[in-house]
Amino acid sequence: MISKAKSKFIKSLKIKKYRKQEQCFVVEGRKSVAELLASDYDVVMVLGTPAFLSTIRPLPGVEVIEASESDLVSLGTFESNDGALAVARMKPERLLLPSKGEWMLALDDIRDPGNLGTIIRIADWYGIKKIVASLETADRYNPKVISASMGSFLRVDLCYTDLPAYIDQIQVPVVGAFLDGDDVHTAPFGYDGILVIGNESHGISEAVSARVSKRVTIPGYGGAESLNAAAATAVILDNLRRTLTGSE
Amino acid sequence: MISKAKSKFIKSLKIKKYRKQEQCFVVEGRKSVAELLASDYDVVMVLGTPAFLSTIRPLPGVEVIEASESDLVSLGTFESNDGALAVARMKPERLLLPSKGEWMLALDDIRDPGNLGTIIRIADWYGIKKIVASLETADRYNPKVISASMGSFLRVDLCYTDLPAYIDQIQVPVVGAFLDGDDVHTAPFGYDGILVIGNESHGISEAVSARVSKRVTIPGYGGAESLNAAAATAVILDNLRRTLTGSE
Repeated sequence: MISKAKSKFIKSLKIKKYRKQEQCFVVEGRKSVAELLASDYDVVMVLGTPAFLSTIRPLPGVEVIEASESDLVSLGTFESNDGALAVARMKPERLLLPSKGEWMLALDDIRDPGNLGTIIRIADWYGIKKIVASLETADRYNPKVISASMGSFLRVDLCYTDLPAYIDQIQVPVVGAFLDGDDVHTAPFGYDGILVIGNESHGISEAVSARVSKRVTIPGYGGAESLNAAAATAVILDNLRRTLTGSE
Repeated sequence: MISKAKSKFIKSLKIKKYRKQEQCFVVEGRKSVAELLASDYDVVMVLGTPAFLSTIRPLPGVEVIEASESDLVSLGTFESNDGALAVARMKPERLLLPSKGEWMLALDDIRDPGNLGTIIRIADWYGIKKIVASLETADRYNPKVISASMGSFLRVDLCYTDLPAYIDQIQVPVVGAFLDGDDVHTAPFGYDGILVIGNESHGISEAVSARVSKRVTIPGYGGAESLNAAAATAVILDNLRRTLTGSE
C-alpha cells in the first residue's frame, strides 16, 4: 500500500521545482528500473507489481513497495506501465570537460524533453559519454527525457553551463552543422572535439556560431529545408565514427 | 468570423474517422499553410490573421476567413499558432511502386504520429519520394504527422497496404536493419530498392523479416541497445546516398 504522503511526493517529482528541492527523480517501466538498480545511482524506493518485485534482489537502503499497474500509472507519466517505477537521487552536477581523444556533444537550447532523451540515446549508441548543455536546454531529469533515453541516461553524463563561456575555456575543435560547411561524408573529423547541436527551430545561436572552429553540412538530396536535431546528431556521429574508426 | 458549423467541422478533423468521412485534413502554421497553397493539393479554406492573409493571393474556390491567433489555437492542435490554418482535401490513394533506379521506404507499423512525420521529413531530405506503409502505421493526415513533417508531406507520397503481400509483388531488393547484418558503412546498396523501417518497440515483423533480401546493421560504439526508428532511417539513408552518389 502506498501512503498518501509518498504518493504526493512521487507525483510532485513531475515538476522541476520539486525535483530540484528533493534532489530526486522518477524512472518508469520494468526495463529502465532494472537498469537503474544495476547502476551506481542511489535508489530511494522501488514500486512494482509482485511479478516485477520477484525479479529483483533486496537492496540495502531501498524501500520496496508493492503496487498495481494502475497505481503506477496514476503516480507516473506513462499511459501504461508494465510493472515498475523507482525514485532515485540526482547525482551532484560537475562540469564535464573533454579528455584527450574524446568527443563530446554540446546542446545549444534543445528545449523539447523528448528530443533531449532521444539525443542522449543516440549519444550512447555512438559511445559519447559526456554532454554539455546550455542553461535553456530541457531538464535531464524530466520524466520524458528519462523515458525517451531508454536507459541511456545511466551511461551518458550531462552538465548545464553557459555555452559560449564554456567553449572559450576549452582547447579542442568545436564542430557545428550549418548549410555552408564541409560535406560530412568527406570532412576529416579530428580525434577529439565537441559537436554542437543547435536548437530545434533556430539552430545554433550567434554567440556559439562565432566560436565554432569547423563548419560541416549534411548533404541533402530532396526538398526538406533541414533535418530535425536528433536525426542530424545521429548522421553526424555516424560519419564521425565511420571516418575515425575506418570501418569502411 | 467563423461560424459554429465551420468551427465544428474543422475541430472534427482531429479525429481519423471524420477525416476519412470528409476526405479533408488540417494544416497549421504560416509556413506550412503557405507551402500547401503553393502545392497541387486542393485547398478548401484558409483561416488566418490579417497579417497572414495580406501575404497570400486570392485563390479561386478557396474560402478565406479572418481569425485571431487564439481562434486558430482553439480550432487546431498547436499550443500556439503564428497565424494560419487551412483545410485541404486528401488525395485519392494509389498504390506506389518503385520505378527503375528509385529507392523507396517501407514502414512496418510506425505507430507514433510524431515518428511518422519525422520519418517523412527525413525521407524528403534524402530525396525519397514514395513510402509504402503497413496498415497499422499511423495516419498520414493526423495533425501531428503533418506538423512533424514540416511541409515534407507535400513532397513525399505515401500509401497503405498489406506489407508482406506488397513485397511479394515487387522485384527490387528489400533492405532491412537487423543486429546481424552487413555494416552500413561498407554494405553496397544497389541503385534501387526498398528500405524497411521496423516498429518503434518490436522492430521488423516476422512476416516482413522473412522477405528481406539484404540485412544491414548500423555499427554501435556504446551501451544503447538500439537507435530509435527515425534516427536509424536517417543514418541508413545517409549511407545509401553517400555510397550511391559517391560524394566522398
